[in-house]
Amino acid sequence: MKWSLVKIMKIDNLKKEINEYLENYFKNKGTYNKIIYDSCSYSLNIGGKRIRPILLALTYYIYKEDYKKIMPMAAAIEMIHTYSLIHDDLPCMDNDDLRRGQPTNHVKFKENIAVLAGDALLNEAMILMMNYALGNSGNSLRAAYEIAVAAGAEGMIGGQVVDIISEGEEISKDQLEYMHSKKTGELIKASILAGGILANAPAKDLRSLEEYGSKLGMVFQIKDDILDVVGDKNVLGKNTHADEERNKTNFISVFGLEKCIELCKSLTEDCINILKNLSVNAECLVELTYTLLNREN
Amino acid sequence: MKWSLVKIMKIDNLKKEINEYLENYFKNKGTYNKIIYDSCSYSLNIGGKRIRPILLALTYYIYKEDYKKIMPMAAAIEMIHTYSLIHDDLPCMDNDDLRRGQPTNHVKFKENIAVLAGDALLNEAMILMMNYALGNSGNSLRAAYEIAVAAGAEGMIGGQVVDIISEGEEISKDQLEYMHSKKTGELIKASILAGGILANAPAKDLRSLEEYGSKLGMVFQIKDDILDVVGDKNVLGKNTHADEERNKTNFISVFGLEKCIELCKSLTEDCINILKNLSVNAECLVELTYTLLNREN
Repeated sequence: MKWSLVKIMKIDNLKKEINEYLENYFKNKGTYNKIIYDSCSYSLNIGGKRIRPILLALTYYIYKEDYKKIMPMAAAIEMIHTYSLIHDDLPCMDNDDLRRGQPTNHVKFKENIAVLAGDALLNEAMILMMNYALGNSGNSLRAAYEIAVAAGAEGMIGGQVVDIISEGEEISKDQLEYMHSKKTGELIKASILAGGILANAPAKDLRSLEEYGSKLGMVFQIKDDILDVVGDKNVLGKNTHADEERNKTNFISVFGLEKCIELCKSLTEDCINILKNLSVNAECLVELTYTLLNREN
Repeated sequence: MKWSLVKIMKIDNLKKEINEYLENYFKNKGTYNKIIYDSCSYSLNIGGKRIRPILLALTYYIYKEDYKKIMPMAAAIEMIHTYSLIHDDLPCMDNDDLRRGQPTNHVKFKENIAVLAGDALLNEAMILMMNYALGNSGNSLRAAYEIAVAAGAEGMIGGQVVDIISEGEEISKDQLEYMHSKKTGELIKASILAGGILANAPAKDLRSLEEYGSKLGMVFQIKDDILDVVGDKNVLGKNTHADEERNKTNFISVFGLEKCIELCKSLTEDCINILKNLSVNAECLVELTYTLLNREN
């Protein structure tokens, strides 16, 4: 029990450290181009949950103590996530004015700068990871590669494409699962896998971590869909019933609310079982997994 | 003289090989997300000059024969260039309908897909380079890193930012030089430098190649500005007098046409001198440099 308490503390500390790293990242950068850093910083530091960098760092941490070392990799994955939000919010995409209770990037900085801020964050993430790989072992390049693939056209971007072209259309369960496993799942899975790769986790554990990542990504998305229906706009920091209004197929519209709540619980149990069979104590990931199941935003 | 002829042949062949590589790259890829590959392929294969991949491969080639090996790196830099064009053409940016005489990506595929196609091309370029680096020496990661930095917020994106925020404003010579050296110059310089790094060129040559790259990038941009004034719309495949119409400061508006033509010539001579002092025969780069000076599109 004491062990578990120590680890809970750790997650809060970790989030603070990630936030500090990201807040300082673009400070005092730029000359004529300064506005791009203001725009990147604005969206990067508007108050996300930091799930992906926390997952990366915690997965690393269950194998190796010196998690501060891999902060650039953790930051990179949050930059990728943030760029995707900026582009998703654009008028030609979801046309959202509000994100985490604040004006979206294009509302604050105009659309042209928002497009470029997204580009710059994706690009910066790659620079960060390559630079990290230059100073570290071959494994770190492997981790960077996994993240890049997860973010790409066969990963996150692919999911977003299907999301867009299927708006207002009836889509199959298959397509829905494809869409979400790509759009949200891949990057979450890659965060976990990259953490394990960076820590030189044994091959057997890496396979388990990948499975854990797939299931956790699914839980995360189903929970998102649940919150879109039963969540509180003020706690969420964004409008609810967005999918309904856009006539989007989601897990709720396919399976119904009750079945979705059940699915979340059983997938979470699967996750816990996988974690318990790793070669190391993964209590802090167990804790985080429950936190994600019970989150309200 | 025979040597030089062989090398001229080489450039045409090289372009063909690059085109083939790029045409095949996205073939038969994708499932539900297939449209993103169609969109990427459309802009990638609409008929560019392939200056950047040619520069990368030729610079490699003056040191090492087996240039086919580095085709993925050459393709990656063309993908980055193409993504930047797709995003530059967007309605919220330059709002161009025509590129290389064809409808721009967002006209053909709609704006949301165009944004994602740009994202996907940038992302794919990074995947390609990381994958190449995983299978090759440490030098290839260094080359990838140089390209990523040149494409980023302190490179190409930074230049585009300044271009956008200075539209309709008087800008200083300093700012104009910043804008162009970043927007066009950095990626051209990086193509050359990366070719040298990949080929393990000696450090002294790398410094010279960097200087050559800076000057060639400048020639390239000034020539672009000249063609915008005196070029033929049909040969260029895009509208002329675009800068004038948008009230943009460019080299012509600052220095005048005559001075710009002179500048191009003297910078080209500088380029040739640098090339002649490399540790290897760089005749094919000399040839290419003159071709760029005399180009009509």
